[in-house]
Amino acid sequence: MKHLLSVSDLTVETATGLLDEAERFEQALLGREVRKLPTLRGRTVMTVFFENSTRTRVSFEVAGKWMSADVINVSASSSSVSKGESLRDTAMTLRAAGADALIVRHPASGAAHRIAEWTADAGDGPAVINAGDGTHEHPTQALLDALTLRQRLGSIEGKRVVIVGDILHSRVARSNAFLLSLLGAEVVLVAPPTLLPIGVSTWPVTVSHSLDAELPGADAVLMLRVQAERMNGGFFPSQREYSITYGLSEKRLAMLPEHAVVLHPGPMLRGMEIASAVADSPKTAVLQQVTNGVHIRMAVLFGLLVGTEGAAL
Amino acid sequence: MKHLLSVSDLTVETATGLLDEAERFEQALLGREVRKLPTLRGRTVMTVFFENSTRTRVSFEVAGKWMSADVINVSASSSSVSKGESLRDTAMTLRAAGADALIVRHPASGAAHRIAEWTADAGDGPAVINAGDGTHEHPTQALLDALTLRQRLGSIEGKRVVIVGDILHSRVARSNAFLLSLLGAEVVLVAPPTLLPIGVSTWPVTVSHSLDAELPGADAVLMLRVQAERMNGGFFPSQREYSITYGLSEKRLAMLPEHAVVLHPGPMLRGMEIASAVADSPKTAVLQQVTNGVHIRMAVLFGLLVGTEGAAL
Amino acid sequence: MKHLLSVSDLTVETATGLLDEAERFEQALLGREVRKLPTLRGRTVMTVFFENSTRTRVSFEVAGKWMSADVINVSASSSSVSKGESLRDTAMTLRAAGADALIVRHPASGAAHRIAEWTADAGDGPAVINAGDGTHEHPTQALLDALTLRQRLGSIEGKRVVIVGDILHSRVARSNAFLLSLLGAEVVLVAPPTLLPIGVSTWPVTVSHSLDAELPGADAVLMLRVQAERMNGGFFPSQREYSITYGLSEKRLAMLPEHAVVLHPGPMLRGMEIASAVADSPKTAVLQQVTNGVHIRMAVLFGLLVGTEGAAL
Repeated sequence: MKHLLSVSDLTVETATGLLDEAERFEQALLGREVRKLPTLRGRTVMTVFFENSTRTRVSFEVAGKWMSADVINVSASSSSVSKGESLRDTAMTLRAAGADALIVRHPASGAAHRIAEWTADAGDGPAVINAGDGTHEHPTQALLDALTLRQRLGSIEGKRVVIVGDILHSRVARSNAFLLSLLGAEVVLVAPPTLLPIGVSTWPVTVSHSLDAELPGADAVLMLRVQAERMNGGFFPSQREYSITYGLSEKRLAMLPEHAVVLHPGPMLRGMEIASAVADSPKTAVLQQVTNGVHIRMAVLFGLLVGTEGAAL
Repeated sequence: MKHLLSVSDLTVETATGLLDEAERFEQALLGREVRKLPTLRGRTVMTVFFENSTRTRVSFEVAGKWMSADVINVSASSSSVSKGESLRDTAMTLRAAGADALIVRHPASGAAHRIAEWTADAGDGPAVINAGDGTHEHPTQALLDALTLRQRLGSIEGKRVVIVGDILHSRVARSNAFLLSLLGAEVVLVAPPTLLPIGVSTWPVTVSHSLDAELPGADAVLMLRVQAERMNGGFFPSQREYSITYGLSEKRLAMLPEHAVVLHPGPMLRGMEIASAVADSPKTAVLQQVTNGVHIRMAVLFGLLVGTEGAAL
Repeated sequence: MKHLLSVSDLTVETATGLLDEAERFEQALLGREVRKLPTLRGRTVMTVFFENSTRTRVSFEVAGKWMSADVINVSASSSSVSKGESLRDTAMTLRAAGADALIVRHPASGAAHRIAEWTADAGDGPAVINAGDGTHEHPTQALLDALTLRQRLGSIEGKRVVIVGDILHSRVARSNAFLLSLLGAEVVLVAPPTLLPIGVSTWPVTVSHSLDAELPGADAVLMLRVQAERMNGGFFPSQREYSITYGLSEKRLAMLPEHAVVLHPGPMLRGMEIASAVADSPKTAVLQQVTNGVHIRMAVLFGLLVGTEGAAL
C-alpha cells in the first residue's frame, strides 16, 4: 500500500493488520515515560491542512514525533494558495522540498486522491494520507473507530453499528460505513431523508429513520457532529428538531443494551447531538478514540513509510 | 508539585528551588554550542494558546526543545474551539492525545486551574502550567522576574520592589506581588485608583499613588505594559495622562538609587510606559528577563515532569 | 561570513563555495531513507516571518531539521508586533530567548539588515539570514537559482540569463541580477519601463523591452511572479497586456535554444506570467529549484553556524 486515501484502499487483511499494529504501538509505549521510538528517524512528514483542525493535526504530529520523524506543519492561511498557486503546484513543491509523507486535509472531495496522482512519479512520490477531504472520506478516523469498537466489543464481526445524524455531509460516516461493513459489522444509518446522500442505496448499509427503534438492538452508536452551518436551508430540520429527533439524550442512552458503546469523532456539541451526561458516560468512548487515533496514525505512517511486511518494533 | 497554576502553589523552598534549578540549567548550557540536554526525551509538551503571544510561547518551546521534549503548538485560531467545542473537551482531547504537560494561555481567569481539575485522573493527568490566565496569574513570569532580581540585587529578601501601572488588568502584577512578597521583598504598588483591583487591601503590599515619591527608595521598579485597549473608558486616565504620571522617563530613572534595576515583562510600548532611553539603559534588565525565562521554564518543566527530588543534570 | 543579508555579502569564492556545499549535502542525502545529519544538533534556528510564505519557510525548516537543529517558527500574526512592539525589541527578544540564527522575512526593505545590526553584540549575536525583505533582496533564492543554472547549463560563466517581468517589485530579480552577474553571467532584464527600478542603470545588466527579441539568444529565462495586487494603477500594464507582452507562452518557449532552461521562483500564476504547458515542460526547472533550495539553505545555515572552513560532512 502506497497511500491511504480511502477505506476502499483497504482489505480485511490490511485493515486488520493496521489495527493490530496500532495495538503493538500502544503496548510498546504503555506506561513508558519515554515515548519515543526511532522508527521514522530521518523521514519528513508534512501535515498540509486547508481546513482548521486540532485533533487530527495534533494526532498525526504526535504520531510522527513519537516515531522520531521530522514533522512540518503547513496551513492554508500561511500558504501560497493565497497567492493564487494551484493545489497541484503546492503539492509538487512540498514533494520537491523533501516530503516523505503528505497528510492532507482539504475542503474539496477528492483533493488527496488528486495529490497522490500528481505527486506519484515512478513509484517515488510521497505517501499521501487523506486526513479528510470535503464530504468524502476520512479513513484514519474510520480505523480508529474500528479499533475502539474492537477493544470495547471484543470484535467487529457481526456487531450492529448505528451511525446517526448528518450522513450527507459526513466523511466520517462514509468511511466508517464502508470500513465497518468490510470488517463484518452490520451498519445502520439513521438520518432525516434530507441528510442522506443520493447514492446511499449502493452503500453496504441499511437505512432507518427512527433512532429510538434502532437503539435496543445496537452494539454501538456513532454520533456525528452537527454541521450547524449547513442547517440553514428550509428543508433541513431546524437545530431544535434535529436535537430532539436525532440527539442522544440520557433517556435514549438507557435504551441501549448494557454492553453497547457510544462513539463521537469530536468536536462534540454538547446539548445538540449528544447530551452532556451522555458524553461523560462510561459507555462513551470519545477519549479512547482520541488515544487510539495516535496509535492508528503511527501504524499508518509506519505501514506506508517503512512497509507492513516487517514488524514495527 | 503536580501543576504550576498560581504562585500560591509555591513555598519559599519550592520557589527558591526553581530559581536555583534555573541557574543550574543556565550553567549547564553556558557557552556551549550544543544546547541540548536529554532530560525530557520522549515527553510530550503541548503549548495551548488561546491568546496571541510570541515571547512566552517561544520561551516554553525553546525550554522544551533544549531538553529534547516533543513540543506541539496548538493555537486557538486553528482549534476546535471555533467549531464550538468546550474548553474541557479540548483539554481532555489533548490529554488523550498524549500530552505530558499542557502549557495554557487563556483570556479567562481560572482557565488553567479548571483544566488541571478536569484532566487530573488518579494522579495521572498531564502537568498543567498556567502561562497567563486573564487578569489573574502568570507564575513563570513572576519566577523569571524573581530570578532576575536575585541576580541583579544579590537577594530578594528585604528589597523594595515598586510595581507600576495598570495593576487591575495585570496578571504579571498579581503573580509578582505575591511571589516577591513570599520571598521577603517589600512590594509597593503605584497606580491610579481606577487601575487597582478591588481586593488589593488583602494583598501583601502597600499602595502609593505617587511614582516620584517611591523611586528614591526603590531597589527595583517593575513597569507594566499599558493595555491601551482597556483605556478607552472615560474614568481611566488618558494615554497621555498615563504616560506623564506613570511612565518611566529618563528624569525618573535618575531618581532611582545607583544599584536599582528596572524590569518590564514586554512587549514594551516605548514612549508610553517607558521612555526609549530608559528601555535601553544598563539599569534595565528586560533581555536578562527573557533569557531567564527560558531557564525558569526548563526548571519548571523539569520539576513537574521529572520531579524536583533529583538533580536535573 | 556572519550573516547572509544580501548577495553583496558574497564573493565569487564564497558563493561558489555555498553552491559546492549544497551539492555535497545533496550527495550526502541522495537515496538515503534516513535524511538526518547531526550537523546542527543543539543549535536553535528561528524563522521569523512577517509575510506569509510556504515554500521559503518550509524549505528552511526542512534544512534545519535535516541537520538536527531545533527549529522554531514565529509568525507575525501571533507575534508581539500586534501589541505594538518594535521590530528591534522583537529581534532582541528572540536573540535573548536563545536564537543562534534568525531567518527573517519582512515587507520592509532593509529589515534583516537592521536586525543584524541590532542583534550584533561583540560578535556574539545570532546569524541573520534575509529570507526576503520588501522589494530588496532574497539571497538564498538567488543562490538556489544559480545552483539550478549550474546544474542545467554546466556553468554560469558566460551564460545569457533573461529576467522577465516586474523587476521593480522583485527582490528575486535584484538578488539574481547581482549574483549571476558576479558569477560571470550576462544578465538581461526584460520589463515594461514602468516596472523597472529607477536605479537600474547602475545594475550590472542590460535592459530590453522585447521578450521575443531576447529569447533566441538566451541560455536561461527567469520568469517573475506577477504581483497582481500592484497592477491596479493606471500606468502599469493591465494583467491582460502583461500576459500577452511578457508571459512565457508555448510559442515563445519554442523560440528558446534547445539547451535553454526556464526558472520561476514560485508560486506560479499559470496562464498569467507562464503558460501551463510551459510550466510543465522539461525545459522548466521549478521543482529542481525547490529541491536545490533545501540544499542551499543547509549550506547557508551550516556555513553561518559552523563555519565554511571545515567540511560539512
